[in-house]
Parts: sequence; structure tokens; C-alpha cells
Amino acid sequence: MKIPEPLQQVDRTYVRVNGRKLSYFAGCDYFRLASHPKVLRAAVAGINKFGLNVAASRLTTGNHELFGKLETALAKFFEAETAVLVSNGYVTNLVVAQALAGDFSHVLMDEKAHPSLKDAAQILSGHTVTFRHLDPLDLKRLIAKLPKSAKPILLTDGMFSHDGAIAPLQSYLKILPKNGVLLLDDAHGAGTLGRAGGGTIELAQISRELVIQCITLSKAFGCYGGAILCTNQLRERIISRSRMFVGNTPLPLPLANAAISAVGVLQKENGLRRRLNENVTWVRKELRKAGYTLADSQSPILAITPKASAEANRIKERCLKNKVFPSFIKYPGGPEDGYFRFVISSEHSREQLGALVASLSA
Amino acid sequence: MKIPEPLQQVDRTYVRVNGRKLSYFAGCDYFRLASHPKVLRAAVAGINKFGLNVAASRLTTGNHELFGKLETALAKFFEAETAVLVSNGYVTNLVVAQALAGDFSHVLMDEKAHPSLKDAAQILSGHTVTFRHLDPLDLKRLIAKLPKSAKPILLTDGMFSHDGAIAPLQSYLKILPKNGVLLLDDAHGAGTLGRAGGGTIELAQISRELVIQCITLSKAFGCYGGAILCTNQLRERIISRSRMFVGNTPLPLPLANAAISAVGVLQKENGLRRRLNENVTWVRKELRKAGYTLADSQSPILAITPKASAEANRIKERCLKNKVFPSFIKYPGGPEDGYFRFVISSEHSREQLGALVASLSA
Repeated sequence: MKIPEPLQQVDRTYVRVNGRKLSYFAGCDYFRLASHPKVLRAAVAGINKFGLNVAASRLTTGNHELFGKLETALAKFFEAETAVLVSNGYVTNLVVAQALAGDFSHVLMDEKAHPSLKDAAQILSGHTVTFRHLDPLDLKRLIAKLPKSAKPILLTDGMFSHDGAIAPLQSYLKILPKNGVLLLDDAHGAGTLGRAGGGTIELAQISRELVIQCITLSKAFGCYGGAILCTNQLRERIISRSRMFVGNTPLPLPLANAAISAVGVLQKENGLRRRLNENVTWVRKELRKAGYTLADSQSPILAITPKASAEANRIKERCLKNKVFPSFIKYPGGPEDGYFRFVISSEHSREQLGALVASLSA
Repeated sequence: MKIPEPLQQVDRTYVRVNGRKLSYFAGCDYFRLASHPKVLRAAVAGINKFGLNVAASRLTTGNHELFGKLETALAKFFEAETAVLVSNGYVTNLVVAQALAGDFSHVLMDEKAHPSLKDAAQILSGHTVTFRHLDPLDLKRLIAKLPKSAKPILLTDGMFSHDGAIAPLQSYLKILPKNGVLLLDDAHGAGTLGRAGGGTIELAQISRELVIQCITLSKAFGCYGGAILCTNQLRERIISRSRMFVGNTPLPLPLANAAISAVGVLQKENGLRRRLNENVTWVRKELRKAGYTLADSQSPILAITPKASAEANRIKERCLKNKVFPSFIKYPGGPEDGYFRFVISSEHSREQLGALVASLSA
């Protein structure tokens, strides 16, 4: 396996490739907050005021008021009891798993769960069984087979990063026994989905009671770091039981400052999510007109799997003709031979979206 | 367990606590590169030129030329075949473990190894045995007991973060069978120890042949991120086998830009390591005069364990009187009731060092 050629984004929604400026529908910077002037100013202010790094665990001498402020802002944004900040989205699930290791008899996992949930399953150390992707009936079948004494934990992505599918959380929670818990990797849903950006929890209108919501600050929020939205009780256990929480240098201070600003931007600028939804709705409608069968979803991720390499090449050519970067990728969970993955942002113009649709239409 | 009160560093080597400015001998920012003007300028330039974040895995659309540049700079600095950049120091060991999982029959681990090495041992999935802290004889005894077919991997910190002790790497490598490998967590040694900053590898004058050196950019380099110094073959395996490498959004771009600058500063400004050594030598000499028994070491970390809480309180009072922040911590590997951990930097003045010595002298 090789790492692909480097890319550099320009002007927020373009990328420069071989001297050509192409519309960029990749990455998961759904609102382009990674280049939002307010967020960038907060990052620069953070550098000037605080320096880069505390260089110590929060449990020794590395605690800083920015971490607490960011946690408070996130708990408020997501209407959760508390938020625990960790160094990135990937480790959120691992930190939770370390805090809960040994507590559950069975780990029930969507077969296409994110790699970090697979790592978490290993750490949780219960017996792991996978259910069919997005399939509550298969989950129900598996749960019916569990012994009466079983205490299961359910692991799934909220919005799956490889194709944008959204997990049927409401159905899952109806099936899950009352002593069970849902560990939700909501890296892509958080900030993006739901009227207030509450993620797949808000979209599915489920209560937080049985849910641990793990989010990242590197997608909708455009910054870096991860957070666990949970109860004070779990926070306490994380601090006392997760080696990864205790032994890791926390987020660089300018990023924490930028993330506080990004949370504010996503909270105040409702237009961002409205524009994203309008863009997603328009592209999905146009692609349906062009003959695509698409799920009825507000998911900004579009996965298009070509039937053969000839079709892949045709799409690539049409993209380049229409000045669209042909983001053909290989990624865990996606088709083995690779596929096109396009991501709509709130900042793409109607003209750019039209070029994408034209590239995908015969 | 509770997270301690937040701290904010000021003027590079001080911290403001309850309105008082105290000399700060904590954290592991050994050269204060987290506030070095060149490094900060590079971070700001990175924000303005690149934005915060690529929001995608390097294996899909998230690769960026800065990552390659930083890897090249690190490989050159450490004279290694290659460097693999990961999102922080903690996960370096986990990424290596995922790449090598199943390859080794036995994991031999220092009993006081860093939490991240304990996590790595779990992932490596061989039979784990711990040897006595820093003890080659105990290691030899354990190796003698292994079956002939054994293929061991040895896990140890280079410089231990809790008390600054340096592992006897040369002795370990003499004992380790030729089919064994040393996974070295050199988070604290890298950039700090050795004439050229090559870390405990350079200090012990051992060859890289059997060694995987894991480093962090959040200590001596003052930035963030981690790197694995290794062979091209291991790099290849990491990219194809480590879920954590594949599924993690890479380092924010301004930090990568800052880290490239920090590597340059540590490479060119030899005065930094010379000053650190002078400061360490002076403090250790003065503390010996004051009656302390200290190992003959160039380690900038000083761990002082009070015999009882009364003594702890006396030291705290003397520190405050001398305007020194009394960094009393609890941390894995250290004494259960807590201890003082002071860290010398190249940027502390002789006056500040004198105040530290005075605080620790009866």
C-alpha cells in the first residue's frame, strides 16, 4: 500500500493539482471551519498568548483553563452532562474502552464499524460478535441468543465515513437490553447532523441515557482533538482508569482555543447547517434525476462505486473536464478496488455542485 | 482522582499562581521550543498558508507535502532510514504494535514502562513478562527461561518520565537474542540526550539494527505529534497493517510546519543542548553538596520523594518562599503518595536554578 500524492487545498473549496485548480469534494471539513477566519484568528491568538504546548499530562502539571473551557462549551453544545477532551477522535473510543474494560460480557459491533471501534472492542475484552451492517434485525437475532446474564455493549458509527450511511439508532436502542450501553462513534455526525448539530443522537431523537457519544473536532469543527460526551460517572472512571487519558499530552493550546471558537461558530451561525442541507438536498435530487438510486438521507457523503475500471476512468475524465478533483480512494469499509467518495460542504457554490453532478451524469 | 487546577506558563520559565509569578520546573518542554519565536512564527505561517486541518486520512485525500517534509527532516535528524509521522507520542507504540501484532512469541517489558508500552504489549498479543526496572540481570534470567523457538520483543522507555532514569540499552542489546527487537519509547530522550540530540540511542552508542525508536514532538521539540524512526520495511507494514495509522486524521498542518521549524532549531542551535547540560550538571552538583544521593546522569528530570507528608509540606513551603512552583504530582510509575518532580530546561537562569536548589536544601 502506498500513501497517495500530497494535496493542498486553496480558496477553501479547491485544490491545486498539476497546476490546475479543481473543485475539491473530499475530506470531511463539512463547513470549512479549518479555514474560517474566526477560527484561524483564535488559533493565532492562542499561539501568541499561550504558546504551543503544555508538555505534560493533565493529571500532573499539564492542566490548562482552555481545556476546561472547551469541555464546558462542548457539553453545552451537545446538551450532555459532561465532555472529556482527548487528543484526537480516533482515541475517544479507546479511552472509553479502557475506562469500561471488563464491564461487559459481550461486544456487539456493526461489521463495518470504524477501525477505532474495532480497536476499542479488543480493549473492552468481552466476547465480540459482529452484526450485519446497519441491520437491526440481525442485531435482534444476536441479542436473542445471548445468555440471560449477558451485559452487552453495542458499537457503531453514527454516520459511516466510507459511504455516509446513517445507523438506525432508534431501532438499536429499542432492541438493546436495559443493562446495555451504546458506544457511538459520532465523528462525522457531530456538528453536522441535526438541527442544532447534535449529531446522529439529535437526528434520531434518542435520549442520552444509554449512549456514550464520541466525537472529533477535526471534521465539522475543522480543528483537532476528540471528546467523549458522557455522564460525570464515566468521566470519573476515564480519569482514574484510562492509561491513554492519563499518559497522553493534551491538545496543543492554540488548537483548543481554535476549537472553542469553532464551537461558537457552529452554535451561532445556523446558516452553515442550512446551507449544507440545501447543498446536499440539491445534489441528491439532481443525481436522482440523472438515474442514481440514492437513499433518502441528509448525509453529505456520496460514495459511488464504479462497476469496472473502464467506468472509473470515464468518471475520472469527466471530473477533470469539469474541473472537479476525482477523489477515488481505497479505505477500510469501502469497496476493495476503490471507489469515488465525494463530500458536500456548506461552502461549495451552486456552480461547483453543478460541475460535480455533470461529472457523475452520463 | 481529580484533575489538578489549571496552570498557565508565562515568560517561558514561569507560571502565575494566585497572582504570584513562580519559577516553573515542570512539564517536559526541555528547550522551551513551545514558546521559541521561530517555532511560533512557523505555526502562524502554517495557519495562514494552509489552514488548520486536512480532515481526512493520509491514505485517502489527506496527504500533504508538509507531512513528507517533516518525516524527511526527522529521519535526517535521527539518522534513521525513515520516519513515520503519527498524531501523538502515545500512539507511536500502539501503531508499531498493530504493525507487528502476532510476530513475537514473548513481550519482555520493564515493570515501570510507560502506559503506552503497556497498551502496546496488549496489542502485540505475545505472552508478556515484566522484568525488574532497569535490571539487565533480571532480563537475562527471563531470556534464559524462554523456549529455544522464542522470538521476543523488548519494551522499555529510553529515559523514564517519572524519575528521569535512563535504561541500560547497551546491556539489553547484548542480552537480547539476534531474532529479537527492541521497541524503545524515547519520548523524553529524543532531541534531549546525546550530542546531536539523537536520544538514548546516541547516548548508549547502540546501532539501530534491532531498534525501533518511538519519539514525540511534544517534549524536546515543543510541538505535537509522534514519529516512529525505523526501517522502510516497517514503514510499509505500518501503512498496510496499522488501523490506527490508516484511520486517524494526521497532525494539523500548522503543527507540522512548527515541528519542521523545531527540528531545524534543535539541529542548528547546539547551544541549547549545551546550556541544558550545563544547567543539569550544576543543579545535580549543588544538590549533592546539599546531601542528596543522585545517580551520575545527565537527565534533566529530578524526582524527589518526601519521606512523609510533613517533609512534603516543608519542601512546598520552602519552594513558595523561594518563588518556585512546588510541582508535587501523582503519576503512574511514581510513588503512590505522590512526589516532587522538577524538570530542568536550557532556558532557566542560574538564579532560578539556585532558587530550586535552595528550596530542596535543608
